[in-house]
Amino acid sequence: MEKAESWLYKTLHYRFKDSGLFTQALTHRSASARNSERLEFLGDAVLDLVISGAVFRARPGASEGDLSRLRSALVKEKSLAEIAADLGVGEYLLLGSGEKKTGGHRRESILADALESIFGAVYLDGGFNAASVMIEHVFAERLIDLPDADDLRDPKTRLQEWLQARGRSLPEYELVGVTGKAHKQVFEVSCSVGDEAGATRGESTTRRKAEQKAAAAMLTQLLEDSV
Amino acid sequence: MEKAESWLYKTLHYRFKDSGLFTQALTHRSASARNSERLEFLGDAVLDLVISGAVFRARPGASEGDLSRLRSALVKEKSLAEIAADLGVGEYLLLGSGEKKTGGHRRESILADALESIFGAVYLDGGFNAASVMIEHVFAERLIDLPDADDLRDPKTRLQEWLQARGRSLPEYELVGVTGKAHKQVFEVSCSVGDEAGATRGESTTRRKAEQKAAAAMLTQLLEDSV
Repeated sequence: MEKAESWLYKTLHYRFKDSGLFTQALTHRSASARNSERLEFLGDAVLDLVISGAVFRARPGASEGDLSRLRSALVKEKSLAEIAADLGVGEYLLLGSGEKKTGGHRRESILADALESIFGAVYLDGGFNAASVMIEHVFAERLIDLPDADDLRDPKTRLQEWLQARGRSLPEYELVGVTGKAHKQVFEVSCSVGDEAGATRGESTTRRKAEQKAAAAMLTQLLEDSV
Repeated sequence: MEKAESWLYKTLHYRFKDSGLFTQALTHRSASARNSERLEFLGDAVLDLVISGAVFRARPGASEGDLSRLRSALVKEKSLAEIAADLGVGEYLLLGSGEKKTGGHRRESILADALESIFGAVYLDGGFNAASVMIEHVFAERLIDLPDADDLRDPKTRLQEWLQARGRSLPEYELVGVTGKAHKQVFEVSCSVGDEAGATRGESTTRRKAEQKAAAAMLTQLLEDSV
């Protein structure tokens, strides 16, 4: 654990009072019954609150729906796993032999969970402020490059809002065709918004996804036409 | 607002530095564009963390799944609305005229949201510790009478775990009949666990709910038999 502790101090400037908590945070359930899962439960909630506060301050005019989408984009497994990989958490994880052999040190879900567990352990060890400082530190770049909340809405919602804002009628989606065998079906859907613009199409493995693609294509078409 | 402030101080022992935040927390979206929704977003996350910490400490041996079920039971709309009603929050809410006429002061969702908004405002005004003290205070009784995590699992899961723990085979569910017209169908399902015990039955508007009822009946039967 000494190596892990000096890594934590160098990268995240934190030293545990109770190093047993840190060991527990690094212990995957495949390695021991005394593992990180309870800490992850706590860390997930700490992370949610700290990021909620950060987007709340960063976007004073945003609706609660936009705040919620911004938070989801920041705390999703993929971002957590990227942050954990950048920090080099994987090297210090305690995994069972099966997970070790199959590359568990690099698996997104394991890395993301480990990061949350560390936040949970820091919260218990040093309190809310210590956890908050650490989380804001590792999210600093992402909080500066915060995405436009608009871009996080799904294409169907954005298309509908774009049309409503211009007093135009709602888009219509139509299933054009289904191809492929029972469990590998491909749905093709068209999207039309009245006479002005031609219909667009989208293809995917579910009807809903195909509609989203057709809506995205329609948005692109409308925005190009309106330039 | 003076009445509301003295109510808050008497019931929750908190005095806002920025009373504008408190006004905003009490303002429903039907009353003003400057309303409680953003504070509710924050308050929901504060509440989640404080209750996560409380169940974490109260149940040192519980799995993260059980902790999560305990938290959900505590922070669900119905409990929040009960707490808000007990405190008398409704009297101080600022509602639009439509909501006022239709009894918005007593509506569960409005009461629950208002309570979360107050927590969010206290978090901004007084920091995490102030919010934490307030939340633990209003949840004190509920945290003492914490339900058994077992009872929060759904009956099908509990039945399966009960049988597995005794090395017995898994329960079987069978659709016995469907009655009623297209949109008011009633599903009847039977549940059997081998020869020892007779099958139980459950009826409901969906097949899944009927299975849960049949499983609950089977659990009762097995527990009575095993006494």
